[in-house]
Amino acid sequence: MIQRVAIIGLGLLGGSIGLALRERAPDIATTGFDANPHVRAVASERGLVAEVCESPAEAVRQADLVILCVPVGAMGEAAGAIAEALPMHAIVSDVGSSKQSVAEALAAALPGYTIIPAHPVAGTEQSGPEAGFASLFTNRWCILTPPDGADPHKVEALSAFWAGLGAKVEIMEAAHHDLVLAVTSHIPHLIAFTIVGTASDLEEVTRSEVIKYSAGGFRDFTRIAASDPVMWRDVFLSNKGAVLEMLGRFTEDLTALQRAIRSGDGDTLFELFDRTRAIRRAVIEEGQDDDRPDFGRKDHGA
Amino acid sequence: MIQRVAIIGLGLLGGSIGLALRERAPDIATTGFDANPHVRAVASERGLVAEVCESPAEAVRQADLVILCVPVGAMGEAAGAIAEALPMHAIVSDVGSSKQSVAEALAAALPGYTIIPAHPVAGTEQSGPEAGFASLFTNRWCILTPPDGADPHKVEALSAFWAGLGAKVEIMEAAHHDLVLAVTSHIPHLIAFTIVGTASDLEEVTRSEVIKYSAGGFRDFTRIAASDPVMWRDVFLSNKGAVLEMLGRFTEDLTALQRAIRSGDGDTLFELFDRTRAIRRAVIEEGQDDDRPDFGRKDHGA
Repeated sequence: MIQRVAIIGLGLLGGSIGLALRERAPDIATTGFDANPHVRAVASERGLVAEVCESPAEAVRQADLVILCVPVGAMGEAAGAIAEALPMHAIVSDVGSSKQSVAEALAAALPGYTIIPAHPVAGTEQSGPEAGFASLFTNRWCILTPPDGADPHKVEALSAFWAGLGAKVEIMEAAHHDLVLAVTSHIPHLIAFTIVGTASDLEEVTRSEVIKYSAGGFRDFTRIAASDPVMWRDVFLSNKGAVLEMLGRFTEDLTALQRAIRSGDGDTLFELFDRTRAIRRAVIEEGQDDDRPDFGRKDHGA
Repeated sequence: MIQRVAIIGLGLLGGSIGLALRERAPDIATTGFDANPHVRAVASERGLVAEVCESPAEAVRQADLVILCVPVGAMGEAAGAIAEALPMHAIVSDVGSSKQSVAEALAAALPGYTIIPAHPVAGTEQSGPEAGFASLFTNRWCILTPPDGADPHKVEALSAFWAGLGAKVEIMEAAHHDLVLAVTSHIPHLIAFTIVGTASDLEEVTRSEVIKYSAGGFRDFTRIAASDPVMWRDVFLSNKGAVLEMLGRFTEDLTALQRAIRSGDGDTLFELFDRTRAIRRAVIEEGQDDDRPDFGRKDHGA
């Protein structure tokens, strides 16, 4: 059903989709566009898609599936730029990290089209056309949030498409997606950005010391705090409600621990720290992380 | 100068010291003790030290260097248990994550002895006698906090010892150490424990969902939130002042970002997110982390 795929935005996610298609579904024709000429040049060089086009309209003209791989705040504009050329039968999807706002933006820009928002829960802190790789989605979840009344055949086709890239597919309400991702992704990123910022602004501790002794835990936060700033600005602004709700709960819990430390209440600390280990074991059992000590980081210095 | 080393506590750190000595300094004689008989049995089996002793006194009787590798809250008791047998010339050191409180506890338990507290800034979320490995300290910093008036020859000997295990050595005031580590290690751990706890207590989002979609960022926090609960309880209680001070600054910064999200102030978000990327680059340049996308985690599911 999906023979021709157009990818709009050729950064980490868009590029990885193109490379995964080339490796796993070489019969699917791929076109692509990026607003940045440098990105288009790298995309051609790396072969992220078979044909890098000079306009979004050209890229989508014959597509069965268009995937918008741009920051969530740019979805409406990207959708508007393909409206004139988009075939009526095409499925329009995306890879954005918040789904209610994207669904609204796409529906407004492309009335009458089949829009099935999607979110592959995969990524690295790298960004740009050099960053993608074919196995990014392997064994990762991709969440589809089809609106009420979406054509079930098209939902099925998009599910099969993502499964073909190695992902495990889940269907969810957009509002529930936004709450789940606020907890599992948005708040962790916000916290990481914050603590890295706090550490770099101290007077008593130099930035050089923060960096030298980062192996004590801080380095894990620097990784996610190195993620694309435009993408993340847009995520927080577009998923404001769920992010603020979850942030409120995190702050309450942090305040309780602060009180336990101040009063020397070791039992409260131990009880929480002991409980959180079980979650880690479950993450590893689910195959969503690596259980080698230090992810093999120790090999790096050896 | 250091011919015989006694290791008290044969978990991740103690075991890794023993294994690193066996690999890098096989001429140094090693003895060890752990209060837990199961740990002693595993230590014998893995050869963490040449001789696993049945009492702490027996382990230290001929030692030139004793390294206490127990939770910081247990340092005083561990020091008391070796007092009767400890040779006067021996250096007493440790591997604890907070240094002022340890220095006080050791000085109180071992009056007249040369005490040079140390903190190798290295670790994994694993703990126990199975967790150690010889390269844990390779290219990692080890901070010594000798008290005023410490014998410079003994400080030099301990520096050379840690350099022999592959570490880079730094000398620092204990109070400054505690502030630096509050930022680079203690607060990151506290935040990670908190968010993992918050996520597992939600009603709207199931624990199974949190685990499934953890690849969006949450999994990085589960790693450090799986660290040894007793060790970390003791760290927060023993470094209370610096932890509460740094936690206050973090909370202020987080509140400012919360306000920016609520008011839709994208510029403030972008400015911070852009700035934190530079810190990541510096961490990688300093050799304190791995710059492969995803630390090679992507290979895991492939």
